[in-house]
Formats: sequence, C-alpha cells, structure tokens
Amino acid sequence: MALIVQKFGGTSVGDIERIKNVANIVKKTVSRGHKVVLVVSAMAGETNRLVALTNQIQEIPDEREYDVVVASGEQVAIGLVAMALKEKGLKAKSYLGFQVPIITDNMHSRAKIKKIETKKLKEDIKKGIIPVIAGFQGVTEDGDITTLGRGGSDTSAVAIAAALKADVCEIYTDVEGVYTTDPRICESARLIDKISYEEMLEMANLGAKVMHLRAVEIGMLYGIPIHVRSSFNDREGTWIIKEEKMEKSEVTAVTYDKNQAKVTILKVKDRPGIAAKLFKPVSEAGINVDMIVQNVSTGGYTDLTFTVQRTDLKKVVKILEPVVKEIGAEGIVSDDKIAKVSIVGVGMASSPGIAAKMFETLAQNAINIQMISTSEIKISCVIDEKYTELAVRVLHEAFDLGKKKK
Amino acid sequence: MALIVQKFGGTSVGDIERIKNVANIVKKTVSRGHKVVLVVSAMAGETNRLVALTNQIQEIPDEREYDVVVASGEQVAIGLVAMALKEKGLKAKSYLGFQVPIITDNMHSRAKIKKIETKKLKEDIKKGIIPVIAGFQGVTEDGDITTLGRGGSDTSAVAIAAALKADVCEIYTDVEGVYTTDPRICESARLIDKISYEEMLEMANLGAKVMHLRAVEIGMLYGIPIHVRSSFNDREGTWIIKEEKMEKSEVTAVTYDKNQAKVTILKVKDRPGIAAKLFKPVSEAGINVDMIVQNVSTGGYTDLTFTVQRTDLKKVVKILEPVVKEIGAEGIVSDDKIAKVSIVGVGMASSPGIAAKMFETLAQNAINIQMISTSEIKISCVIDEKYTELAVRVLHEAFDLGKKKK
Repeated sequence: MALIVQKFGGTSVGDIERIKNVANIVKKTVSRGHKVVLVVSAMAGETNRLVALTNQIQEIPDEREYDVVVASGEQVAIGLVAMALKEKGLKAKSYLGFQVPIITDNMHSRAKIKKIETKKLKEDIKKGIIPVIAGFQGVTEDGDITTLGRGGSDTSAVAIAAALKADVCEIYTDVEGVYTTDPRICESARLIDKISYEEMLEMANLGAKVMHLRAVEIGMLYGIPIHVRSSFNDREGTWIIKEEKMEKSEVTAVTYDKNQAKVTILKVKDRPGIAAKLFKPVSEAGINVDMIVQNVSTGGYTDLTFTVQRTDLKKVVKILEPVVKEIGAEGIVSDDKIAKVSIVGVGMASSPGIAAKMFETLAQNAINIQMISTSEIKISCVIDEKYTELAVRVLHEAFDLGKKKK
Repeated sequence: MALIVQKFGGTSVGDIERIKNVANIVKKTVSRGHKVVLVVSAMAGETNRLVALTNQIQEIPDEREYDVVVASGEQVAIGLVAMALKEKGLKAKSYLGFQVPIITDNMHSRAKIKKIETKKLKEDIKKGIIPVIAGFQGVTEDGDITTLGRGGSDTSAVAIAAALKADVCEIYTDVEGVYTTDPRICESARLIDKISYEEMLEMANLGAKVMHLRAVEIGMLYGIPIHVRSSFNDREGTWIIKEEKMEKSEVTAVTYDKNQAKVTILKVKDRPGIAAKLFKPVSEAGINVDMIVQNVSTGGYTDLTFTVQRTDLKKVVKILEPVVKEIGAEGIVSDDKIAKVSIVGVGMASSPGIAAKMFETLAQNAINIQMISTSEIKISCVIDEKYTELAVRVLHEAFDLGKKKK
C-alpha cells in the first residue's frame, strides 16, 4: 500500500466527461489498496479566460488582484472533482490553498511555497477521505491569495508529495510521458521510461514543455519519484528519479527552443566592468540572459553576443541602446531568427566525443553553428531557425534515440 | 461625509464595460467626500453556469462542494472591480468571505451570517482604501466556504453595513427601484420613493423580486436605511426606511405570485391532531405551506385547502397520498393554475374598508376569489391564474397607485 499524490492538469479535467474519468482513475488506484491525495488544475482554457479578463481591465494587472481572479479556476475544478469522487462512492473533500494551508511568500503571480501544513490532510487520509487540493495557489502569512506562475500545479503536487512523504507523485497529462524529442517533428521519437531529475531539469530549461521546472527541483531535493503519464490510458509513462537508480545513457534526449533571439554589441572596449554595465540593467528589468559569448579581443576591442527569450528582444534593445552609447561601443545588432538545439544526458560528462559527434552531425547537414554552450549534462548549439526540425531529426538519429527498427 | 456600503449585482458587473462603470460610480461617490465599502455579486450568468456544472456531475450536488464551486463567481468579480478602481487612481483591496472574515453557520448553500469581523475593513477605510468584498459567501468557524443562497449578496451588503454602522446601504441593480407594481404588466406602475421595511418584507414574501428577504430583515433589525437604485443612471431610487419616518399610505403596492398551487384534502374528519398529521411530513420535507383554509365543519367532516409553491406541488401530493388514506379522508385534489394577488400598505390596519374595496374591485371584474389571507399590512387573494394581470391592473387603479395623469 502506497501513498500516491495524483496531479491532474487542465486537459485531464477539461470537461465533465474528463472529470468523471479522473474519478475512475482514482477509484482504480484506491481499489488497488493505495491511499490517494489529489492536486487539480483549472479546467483547460479557464486560466486563459481569466487572464484575458484581467487584461481587459488593466494593461498590467494589479498583481494581488490578478491572483484573486486567476486562482478561482482551480476552485471550480476541485469542487467538481470532489463531487465526481463522491458520486463514485468515494469519500472526498476539497481544499483551497488557504484551507490546507499552503503558505507562500508574497511574490504575487510567481509565489514560492514556504510551508505546507499536513495536519488536516493526514487526518483525512487516516479516515479514508481523499483530499482534493487546488493546485497553482497558496496563501501568504497575511491571508492574501497567491499563485505560483503558469504550470504551477505541478509544483503544488510535488511539494505536497514531499510534505506528506508520499511514495510517488503521478503527473497525469495529455501526453504519454517524456519523449526523446518532440514527436510532432520527429516520427521516431521514443517514450523515455526513466530519466534523472538533472536531465529533466535541463530539458525543461531547454524548451521541453512537459513539466514545471520548480516541480522537478523539489522532486530532486526531497527524492520524490515523479511519474509523468497519460490520463487517457492505463500505460506507464516516464519516471523521473535519482540518477543512481538508472543506467547512465550518453544522450537521453534532443530538445529545441525557438523562443530565442541573439543580441551582439559591436566593438566593445575590452576592459573590466563593461560586462556588468551591460548586463545589470537587463537583469534589473527581470530579463534572463541565457548564453553569452565573447570573442577573442583584437586591438583592445571585442564583440559581445548573448541570447535572450525572443519575447524579451525589443525590451533588451531599448534598454541597451543608451548603454552602448555610454560605453562607446560601435553599435548593437540583433537576430530573432535563431533557435537553440540541445542534447541532454547524464552519461555525457564521462563520454568524450559526444560534443564532436554533435558538431559533426550538424556540419554534415550544412547547418552552421552560431554559438555553443555546454554543461555537465547538456550541449546546446544556436543555429539558424529554419534548420531546427532538420537538426533535431539528424541528432536524434545520430545518437540512436529512436524506436528500435522492426 | 457618510460611510456608504454600495452593493453591485450581477448585471451591474455583467461585462468589462459595466465593471468600469462601477468604478465611475464609486469615484463619483468618493469625490463627494464619502467613504465607500463595496459588496459585489458574480458577473451576470456566471452563478447559473457554475450551478449547471455541479448538476452535470451530481443530480443533487454535495452541499459543501457546491458552495466551493459557486462561490468562485464572486471571487472573479471582486478582483476585476478592485483592478478597475485602481485603474481610476483609487486605492482598493478585494476581500473573500474568509479574508474579512464573514463567519456563517455551516448550513451549506443557505448559510446564515453569525459574525462579521470589521477590524481589517475599518483599517482600510481609515487609510482611504476601498474594501471590495465578495457577496453571497462566508466561511464557517472550521474554515469551510459557505454561500447564503441565491440573492444572498444583498444580505452580505446590509449585514456589512450593519457591522460597520454605515449611514446607508445602496443596492445598485438593473431597475430604478421598487415599483407600486410590476411595470411589465401595468403601464402606470410608479417608482416608490420611500417604503417601510415591513412593507418591503411583505412584498418580497408576496412575489416582488427586488430584494433578498433576509437583507430587509437585517436592515430593519439594525436600522440601516437601504437605497435601491439603478447602476445605469444617477437618479434616486427607492429608500427602504423605518415606518415612523414616512407618511403612512393606505396601500403602497400591488404584488402577484404565479408560483402557486392549491391542494385540497376532501372530507377530513374534524378532530384534533389531524392537521398536524397532514402538515408535519410536509414541513419535514422542507416545503413551506403558505395559506391554509378550513371550511366550516358539517357532520363532523371538513375540507382542508392550502397553498404551496407550484414547484413543490408534485412532492406534496406524493407525501400526502398515504397520509390521506391513513386518516380516512375522501381524497386529495390539486390545482396549479392559480395565482396570489396582494395589496401591501402600512396604513391598512388603521383604514377599515380596504379589504372590502379589494374584494369589490375583483368582483366588478368578474374575478372569483378562491382564498383570502390577511395580515396587519397586506391582504392576499388567490384567484384563477389567467386573471392575474387584469387583477393587478384594476387593483393598482382602484387604490390610485399610478402615475399622476398629466
């Protein structure tokens, strides 16, 4: 008998029939002798509808009130799911963030969980009552409603699993699990049965949209196995677990991210403090700089290139134009027709030649590499956006990630 | 400078434009030097949508979870209204039931307010912050969400006005105020400028749908003047106030209620305990019996006639059929083609001849009276449903309630 936290995303509770299906999944789990705690997202489309309402009132919505409005989506979902469970003869009780309570800091719309009170939940579990908890939301110590940012229900679920010392956190979604690459652009993409937290973190970072980053971090920190699986069938999906429990693969997956843009500051004087002058105003505007490349200095000048999310490009250029003048650089150029293609794998560090093979594969296909960035478990290349799908497919093939040929 | 509680109903916050209009009304009130506290309903149609969702999951929805789902409508509205106020440069802060808190009993879906904590609200008012409070909802002492029943936002507003000792509670709605009768069926219906709590209670009881009954009761109990007015213009509406502050009118209004049905138990033995045997199971089923008429006993037998809401008729007949057999009555007959037409006025008790005039007026128009019920301030007649509109018009005319002829 295990204690299982099951999280159902927006598409899994998207309509009345899907909500009834959730009740079936829970009933099956209970009938196998397990204890279950549910975490539920808003019905698909609901959060978007609520966000749109706030935008119609204020261009930049007041953050406290934004959270009040958007948190209501999960409230509807947990009530309906609790009813559906009762209709199947199960005992259930819905919980809003403030009722658990799930205490967060007061960074509205991107709050972080500070503490989860487990007393009421444990009492329910003991009595055979299934707690149905609103994902995505919490409450500050002052009683204000907060939300954790888009996709935050994953984080709620893993954090609740950690607080309850659950045996596993199951993330039910509309895909089968985590794939070696995006199946929409690569036919031979294969479902990964096991992946390490570290690899999953890199993948989430590099553009794979399966799981919320914080959720994986919390899972890693507390050692909670996360099982990403489909709510449409009973098959096993992908287990996200500790590295030592799995065979180390050289390369586990290929990811890509088209939400990328490149900025180059031309002929920057190569002296201390210049980089800080450039990047401080950017980070103060809340913009993440990803890769940074500085060419070898010639004649005391260098070109400085970095990437940002494409949606931030205009803002970055606007911020840097006066700075560029101030530091006496020649100018600023940008390119938003780029993409980042990456390979991820825990075995990479101990396998020399992986990087070379990646570069070679791209070269053989006449794909020029504009920037390179590496970590212990990933290698990323910035390329011309139009080659994205080709690059993904040839790398997937080169590292033999596909389904076994029949 | 007055402290004004302003309540905006569903149509007054029905879309983004209407919500912005609410902000204009509030701004105008503030600019006149008043302090304002808002109570807001869900956007028009939203509560119906949520109720429909619950009905799709459970025929009789679990009451605790029903409240969780339907209370979310007000949550969206208060966030949006608070944003709209901020957009106009006002200071505002939304409050859910649990945040005030508004403590209720635990009768889910029809909870009664037990206590309203005013500390936070008073602090806000002192700082010039406008509290925007969710109507319709509260929280039990155990932290469960409750709702007060349909139309409950009126009750929230008047109760908050009472707790804050406000000078007036303004109920903004989509009509101009309270009319002498339904303007849809009587052209000459006139807006009433002042009406007593007692008259308003009778009117609400007798089918006028302007205000929630409990709201008027609380207003009367705490002496809070209630001003029912339109959110679509700046004109004064109807003041609901203490009787001694107004001229006593003989008849103030004519009301009607078509949601009526009549049940007759034929040839009941006229002995003690029979009425209790009949009405106990009916009241235990939560069904309100309204008028009861017992004919003079002849030969130890009597016919017993009573009215119930039409929507309860089938249930009542089903409950009473076995009882009728048990007590040896001849049978049970029912009629759902009836209506109740009433005249209301605080001056009625001291003006003999009002009842006679009512009966005479109906007789002159060939409208047969089937049942009569009177109180200090109202007289009700049950008539054939098809004469409802005619009866309303001739009574309105007979008691000279209409607009002055030009």
